[in-house]
Amino acid sequence: MNEWRPLEQAGAGHAVPFRPRRRAEFAAGRASRSPGGGGPGPRRPRSGMALGRFYLFSLVLGTLGSLCVLFTIYWAQHWRGGFRWDGSSRMFNWHPVLMVAGMVVLYGAASLVYRLPQAWLGPKLPWKLLHAALHLAAFVLAVLGLVAVFDFHRHNHIAHLYSLHSWLGIAAVALFACQWFLGFAIFLLPWASLWLRSVLKPLHVFLGATILSLSTASVISGINEKLFFSLKNATAPYSSLPPEARFANSTGMLVVIFGVLVLYVLLASSWKRPEPGLLSDRQPLLQEGE
Amino acid sequence: MNEWRPLEQAGAGHAVPFRPRRRAEFAAGRASRSPGGGGPGPRRPRSGMALGRFYLFSLVLGTLGSLCVLFTIYWAQHWRGGFRWDGSSRMFNWHPVLMVAGMVVLYGAASLVYRLPQAWLGPKLPWKLLHAALHLAAFVLAVLGLVAVFDFHRHNHIAHLYSLHSWLGIAAVALFACQWFLGFAIFLLPWASLWLRSVLKPLHVFLGATILSLSTASVISGINEKLFFSLKNATAPYSSLPPEARFANSTGMLVVIFGVLVLYVLLASSWKRPEPGLLSDRQPLLQEGE
Repeated sequence: MNEWRPLEQAGAGHAVPFRPRRRAEFAAGRASRSPGGGGPGPRRPRSGMALGRFYLFSLVLGTLGSLCVLFTIYWAQHWRGGFRWDGSSRMFNWHPVLMVAGMVVLYGAASLVYRLPQAWLGPKLPWKLLHAALHLAAFVLAVLGLVAVFDFHRHNHIAHLYSLHSWLGIAAVALFACQWFLGFAIFLLPWASLWLRSVLKPLHVFLGATILSLSTASVISGINEKLFFSLKNATAPYSSLPPEARFANSTGMLVVIFGVLVLYVLLASSWKRPEPGLLSDRQPLLQEGE
Repeated sequence: MNEWRPLEQAGAGHAVPFRPRRRAEFAAGRASRSPGGGGPGPRRPRSGMALGRFYLFSLVLGTLGSLCVLFTIYWAQHWRGGFRWDGSSRMFNWHPVLMVAGMVVLYGAASLVYRLPQAWLGPKLPWKLLHAALHLAAFVLAVLGLVAVFDFHRHNHIAHLYSLHSWLGIAAVALFACQWFLGFAIFLLPWASLWLRSVLKPLHVFLGATILSLSTASVISGINEKLFFSLKNATAPYSSLPPEARFANSTGMLVVIFGVLVLYVLLASSWKRPEPGLLSDRQPLLQEGE
């Protein structure tokens, strides 16, 4: 548990901007504020053990995220008739798969790009581009997931956006769109001032964590709603917990565990990229700084 | 937006333990690391304007929290037949009210005790006791809320704990119980070592935020599920968004906004209690330190 640090201490080094020339020392574990150490006071050097813990955590997250998507696919394939893109209930089946894959798993992975030890070295720009590109891919999956459910509704004369699940889900996707454009305009394009970036960065991080939480809550209410719709068979209703119900409930709980672990790494772990002052935040698009 | 600060910077002062004798200066706004300032570098003195913003935010949170409870009561009273404690569906109506009041609103208020400027002064023990007492009251409300739904199920021969909503909700309450006893044993009783407290404090804060997120997700899936159960009238189904549906959906969205704002104040704002080193964490139960 050595890597557990108070939220307030996790990046205490930020209070004093980090000089760029020390980044090589940092990566080599010689800088005094290197992440990976625990307890109060200055950070201890990043040890091989701390790195090992990080990779173990990444392995757990990667496995959990993959299981979330695979379980959702298996649920749709095994119990709900599989996948088509034809307006039928088999088109609807794309909705949970694409939302879990896009708004939770890929979104979560994209959020953690700066936590990779590789991202701690060299210019920040390539990692910013990767962060933006992965989030864009996540957004495209989410939009396809929305197309799947809207088309299913249209073909079956079902009203759009009436349930609380849909209100929360569409709010999460809309916030995601705002967040992506805000991030692109402020942190990737070269126009924003240092002051504006330093003011908006914590809002960007907090809003990012909020969107993941709303998406996860939306997935939970969606799986719950779908099971009440589908498991109406008098011999094996939802309330008798048939195998499908146990499986889909477990999938929902897996999604929650994945979301919570991503938020832990994002907000509370010590695996934060050491900031070389505010200089790297000014790296404009398509221009390698430092 | 002066109070927006990077999560990592919000409590940078913790990296160097704060000397107790400076607390009076701190409260008077003379200490250099006083919260309320924005931007990188050492904290600026806490200004009257920052305090004003805090109280404005508190007023918003108080109003929102009250509206969450009042709206849930109004929903049950106006559309669902009101309240009884007799095993009927009117007993069930206590369930959403008590869970929203206990697991979200009172829980949220209890979580923010240390953010009050009054809590920044003097010994920490009274505030620890208030934090524990309010959370205990929240837990009692949650348990009563569970009794309401279990009794309703028993009287109506409905299975317990089969939906994903119930799995997530019971997990949130169980985690809350663990969290309360962990907090009581580690942070209130005098036996735990400084090392153990410093290791467990970030876990305590993160787990606290996690429980509020799970509770909010559970409330969303619960309102969603209840509306699908109740609004089956062919002339005004849920999908036609009758007034009850619009009202209850809005209540759910209010709960989400309240939860997000509490998490912002808890995790990302600069309104954190300045720690006088680790000394105050050792204050044992029923013994006034300093």
